[in-house]
Amino acid sequence: MAGSTYGNIFKITTWGESHGKALGVVIDGCPAGIPLSKKDIQCFLDRRKPGQSKFTTQRSEDDSVEIFSGIFEGKTTGTPISMMVKNKDHHSADYSQIAECYRPGHADFTFDAKYGFRDYRGGGRSSGRETIGRVAAGAVASKILSELGIHIITYSKSIGNIEISDENFDINEIKNNSLYMPDAAAAKKAEAMLQDQMAQMNSCGGIIECIIEGVPAGIGEPVFDKLDANLARAVMSIGAVKGVEIGDGFRVSTASGFQNNDSFFFENGKISKSSNHAGGILGGISDGSSIIFRAAIKPTPSIAKTQHTVNQKNENITINIKGRHDPIIVPRAVVVVESMAALTLVDMIFTAMTSRIDFIKDFWKKNS
Amino acid sequence: MAGSTYGNIFKITTWGESHGKALGVVIDGCPAGIPLSKKDIQCFLDRRKPGQSKFTTQRSEDDSVEIFSGIFEGKTTGTPISMMVKNKDHHSADYSQIAECYRPGHADFTFDAKYGFRDYRGGGRSSGRETIGRVAAGAVASKILSELGIHIITYSKSIGNIEISDENFDINEIKNNSLYMPDAAAAKKAEAMLQDQMAQMNSCGGIIECIIEGVPAGIGEPVFDKLDANLARAVMSIGAVKGVEIGDGFRVSTASGFQNNDSFFFENGKISKSSNHAGGILGGISDGSSIIFRAAIKPTPSIAKTQHTVNQKNENITINIKGRHDPIIVPRAVVVVESMAALTLVDMIFTAMTSRIDFIKDFWKKNS
Amino acid sequence: MAGSTYGNIFKITTWGESHGKALGVVIDGCPAGIPLSKKDIQCFLDRRKPGQSKFTTQRSEDDSVEIFSGIFEGKTTGTPISMMVKNKDHHSADYSQIAECYRPGHADFTFDAKYGFRDYRGGGRSSGRETIGRVAAGAVASKILSELGIHIITYSKSIGNIEISDENFDINEIKNNSLYMPDAAAAKKAEAMLQDQMAQMNSCGGIIECIIEGVPAGIGEPVFDKLDANLARAVMSIGAVKGVEIGDGFRVSTASGFQNNDSFFFENGKISKSSNHAGGILGGISDGSSIIFRAAIKPTPSIAKTQHTVNQKNENITINIKGRHDPIIVPRAVVVVESMAALTLVDMIFTAMTSRIDFIKDFWKKNS
Amino acid sequence: MAGSTYGNIFKITTWGESHGKALGVVIDGCPAGIPLSKKDIQCFLDRRKPGQSKFTTQRSEDDSVEIFSGIFEGKTTGTPISMMVKNKDHHSADYSQIAECYRPGHADFTFDAKYGFRDYRGGGRSSGRETIGRVAAGAVASKILSELGIHIITYSKSIGNIEISDENFDINEIKNNSLYMPDAAAAKKAEAMLQDQMAQMNSCGGIIECIIEGVPAGIGEPVFDKLDANLARAVMSIGAVKGVEIGDGFRVSTASGFQNNDSFFFENGKISKSSNHAGGILGGISDGSSIIFRAAIKPTPSIAKTQHTVNQKNENITINIKGRHDPIIVPRAVVVVESMAALTLVDMIFTAMTSRIDFIKDFWKKNS
Repeated sequence: MAGSTYGNIFKITTWGESHGKALGVVIDGCPAGIPLSKKDIQCFLDRRKPGQSKFTTQRSEDDSVEIFSGIFEGKTTGTPISMMVKNKDHHSADYSQIAECYRPGHADFTFDAKYGFRDYRGGGRSSGRETIGRVAAGAVASKILSELGIHIITYSKSIGNIEISDENFDINEIKNNSLYMPDAAAAKKAEAMLQDQMAQMNSCGGIIECIIEGVPAGIGEPVFDKLDANLARAVMSIGAVKGVEIGDGFRVSTASGFQNNDSFFFENGKISKSSNHAGGILGGISDGSSIIFRAAIKPTPSIAKTQHTVNQKNENITINIKGRHDPIIVPRAVVVVESMAALTLVDMIFTAMTSRIDFIKDFWKKNS
Repeated sequence: MAGSTYGNIFKITTWGESHGKALGVVIDGCPAGIPLSKKDIQCFLDRRKPGQSKFTTQRSEDDSVEIFSGIFEGKTTGTPISMMVKNKDHHSADYSQIAECYRPGHADFTFDAKYGFRDYRGGGRSSGRETIGRVAAGAVASKILSELGIHIITYSKSIGNIEISDENFDINEIKNNSLYMPDAAAAKKAEAMLQDQMAQMNSCGGIIECIIEGVPAGIGEPVFDKLDANLARAVMSIGAVKGVEIGDGFRVSTASGFQNNDSFFFENGKISKSSNHAGGILGGISDGSSIIFRAAIKPTPSIAKTQHTVNQKNENITINIKGRHDPIIVPRAVVVVESMAALTLVDMIFTAMTSRIDFIKDFWKKNS
Repeated sequence: MAGSTYGNIFKITTWGESHGKALGVVIDGCPAGIPLSKKDIQCFLDRRKPGQSKFTTQRSEDDSVEIFSGIFEGKTTGTPISMMVKNKDHHSADYSQIAECYRPGHADFTFDAKYGFRDYRGGGRSSGRETIGRVAAGAVASKILSELGIHIITYSKSIGNIEISDENFDINEIKNNSLYMPDAAAAKKAEAMLQDQMAQMNSCGGIIECIIEGVPAGIGEPVFDKLDANLARAVMSIGAVKGVEIGDGFRVSTASGFQNNDSFFFENGKISKSSNHAGGILGGISDGSSIIFRAAIKPTPSIAKTQHTVNQKNENITINIKGRHDPIIVPRAVVVVESMAALTLVDMIFTAMTSRIDFIKDFWKKNS
Repeated sequence: MAGSTYGNIFKITTWGESHGKALGVVIDGCPAGIPLSKKDIQCFLDRRKPGQSKFTTQRSEDDSVEIFSGIFEGKTTGTPISMMVKNKDHHSADYSQIAECYRPGHADFTFDAKYGFRDYRGGGRSSGRETIGRVAAGAVASKILSELGIHIITYSKSIGNIEISDENFDINEIKNNSLYMPDAAAAKKAEAMLQDQMAQMNSCGGIIECIIEGVPAGIGEPVFDKLDANLARAVMSIGAVKGVEIGDGFRVSTASGFQNNDSFFFENGKISKSSNHAGGILGGISDGSSIIFRAAIKPTPSIAKTQHTVNQKNENITINIKGRHDPIIVPRAVVVVESMAALTLVDMIFTAMTSRIDFIKDFWKKNS
């Protein structure tokens, strides 16, 4: 109930603090028979690990994953998969600043309010390192999706006020720049802007966009477990996210019904939509179009610029947060958003398997 | 698992279709000893019932609630509360249009794709009437919150492109106009605009804002059950919602860290924030400031204007949706958003009760 | 969390008190496309309704079920099925005795201790009438099982110290006697014994046995959701049950490993067991043999004989419980045990559907 | 959903196989502020570790626990506690026998039937080593219970047909003998009997009894989450358990209502029961008396005596299971039963905290 478990059928439980011995995840409900190696996990973790560029913290961690259970002779066995990443560089010289005062924009104060005290050696469970478990599990979920022909593309849509343009959009470019933008020109501008923010001891936010391709119509439940509702929770549960929208999102508020409705048409033996304002979800259920959503990421709260705050003696003080902080969270959050989308989708696909008696009879025939 | 249940400790299960015999909800996990009457529920249902104004469907339903269990001598007993609203005007003359074709912007197509067939007499579980159960349960959750000194204010922030202004903002005005806007002038303009849309056989969307006051710091769980994550799911699970944002929401993407961070200060024996960009939630946990979020509501998909679509014989056709449809969903959705917020908050307050051993010892002392 | 919901995928929520307006159940997660009528439910409810024989309460209830949702044109739609039975004879003349004192063997005292007060008009949620929701839902679960070729046989194995004998065992006899015993001679003896107990203003217990046929090997999860573990909880959650055992049950404690192990053999293209001490479950997973379990049912606590107890003024008093009480719970509990077994099995079959990637791929191929 | 998670509020997830790299558990929902050390855990694990006596497997494991998260400066932080025990002696020389054939009484066959293949290096998730995670978590639950003044006593009530006697009963004796019997004379007889079984290459079962003291009236939920129902599931989910009974258990079936009912009386300012046939639970809710239950443990299925079975080529063969097997599971299962009881009780106490509005108001006053 303390909320470190996500998913109903494909269920993950994450654990670990930023400055503890290790962080990890247990996946329960992963089907047997999936080829899975350490490499499948590591390539996901590498997309979020520190030290990739000048825009990511220089904390020295290789984030190498160990797998302890649930795999035998290269395949999942159907039993829980336990994975761990050890913290190597967790003996930061000096906790005193963070131990004694509440950093603005961080959860130091709310943790103390909630639990009465906190592990003051870092962000604890509210650190970005908490996402290691999500990403390791997301790698497994993505593997399942790729077995089903589903592909997820995730990228930085904007960094601060610099947005990608439709004409420059190039998926192959995403991995070519340190900001994971599908637009080389925008990435270049954004990098310059970020250098400037760093010089000013400040930080920046942005928007991440995620496109899921290959989901047929029929996935998602009609009421509280709408596919978009569960995606919204999954993505909003990532530390720095302050907004989530599906399809046209907030723009629907100023559109008319005629503009916003997507017409259906029948062609080549298939019902499709002539537009996709809905973002691939109608009534909480996938409609066969691409699923599209966006997440707003706040600027890194750790900045060296002088800020006002309170210490644990209730004195009003100023603070300059030193240390190895990313000036922007967005690029490293790209794989986290993708992981949460994959975890959600796998869980909802598994849920859909019991929605019709004929699906159940097919399964039964095979087993009896 | 089919997702008609919401909540972990304070748990609701809704049921019923738009054109079935009745709709209802069962609340399990409501504490014993709360004074509760039919009137407490009815006043919430009346805020969403049809026929309130020219902007709501003229379907003739009084949405009168019956309570079947869980209350004895005017107080909750701790056992499940079962409530029902009978459908009166459900024999709509003619289902043939909706039975045979897929209305754009509706879930007709996705229901057929998911279940193989559907109750074609109306929107079924994807109708706005599905929210009756949410609102009846939300009334009970709100009662609990008011016992704890928490108050929720919810209103239409914008209707189409007409937005309330800060200078005109007046909470008392919300109930004075048919659009539930806290700004009389904006409401007047919006009403005129809606009349115009209706004349054009078109519809409109908008934005709902919700402010929760009286929540101390410490409510919400740090990882997947962040207070904002659960609010996002709760609100996005309402049929017409396409986006949710907390505090500054999507605006954080263009702010700097220095702008977006809220400074803490100590005054009058209490730690507060000098601004509230965070919307009252840090690291998924309430910080003692007002909790603020917004939801983007899409325009009513049922419009009389000619649209292209497909029928069940896979023929490309045109459709003009006749009948008793709201030209705007926003005003009736206000109480639904408020209900989902109340349900979420009660559940997370109950969850917080086991977060510290001293809370548990206090409870135990009282009971042993 | 207050525990009125059972099941993970096929999920039921029951509500209602013995002397309230009605009792009911909502099923969420029932697959679409199952032919289902009121008659399917009623025939289950009729097996537990009052007034069937001189050994059941003469309370005048026909326990007629109403279905409010989830069925369209004779088939389940995949949306929640809400069912209700109205209490007719709930205005018992005189609550004063039960209102003021704690009946031995009943939950009056523990309800007061838990909730601070109780609905004193009868047993409330601890009455046998609470099982109406279980049985209505169990009828639906049984319908699903029969579509899969699974059959459940449940009967009274013993009434007091009168046990059925192997040589007289006749399944067809179960419905011929008022005690649901598969042995006419034993039933006759038991009826005489019960008459005697009634004359002495006393009551009797017994053992119910349940045999499930047609479950192939592979159903059940290996750790906490073992098939036998979930059956044990399901059955022990029925009011009067004080013990549950699988296969040889308590007799295993005195057997040797060699005696208790069931040998495997291969014959006619199939692996079988030469005996079934295990009761059809190995390591929590069905092994293809018949699943067999037993439940111990305590004697009806409501007896007219003089008993010592305490009233709400904390005075030590004596009590003679008057009224319409069954002298034995066993026969009416038979269908309740069967219902809980059916509900558990359906839920675990649905869970098994995601245990292998090849099952998921089969489902996917059909849907894409 | 694959059932490696137990508990609703105090939630544990176990992982690991008998011959994998390690086994472990993650506890989510442990309150902050509990003093907790490695020693608290280790003393529980030592009660189940191999090599304690001639009646336990000689597999060489010290079962030393590592704690990775959730504890800071000697106290729980409220975040997940991840614990692990590494397998040291897991390179058993020869898997071939167990790899190729189905051991009678084991889950080899059902695992293959369920998942299509299995980790054939040992019992996998169905090994007794799976209980390491349960016991490590049970140690934490027991710590919480002892903070609340609750004590659990668990012991072997019978080994084969040798039962403890009431007159010799001595709690202090439990730890003095290798069989954890509270009766020195019975233990001596049982040891001799076991030596004999070992000589015959056979094995033995028994009964474990558990007494929980210090639970006030009011814990447990009235319907599906009855305290006894959840205990039954918890205990039946332990590998070798085939029966569970509460209080008088199966003996209620032959008792009369007058015999079985426990009279209430008021004395010294408190309502008590003059007997405890109910085992401390009425209507699923604790009644203030000691909670008493028993579990039937089957004889170890691994025996060296010749047995008939089938290999993976579907040939009928004989098998003599060699290796380091306990001739009896009972003594090592004592701490496992105790752990499952502790986990269940903590979860149900936490659930009870939200059963009354006055409990919630007390909590709120302290926090606002």
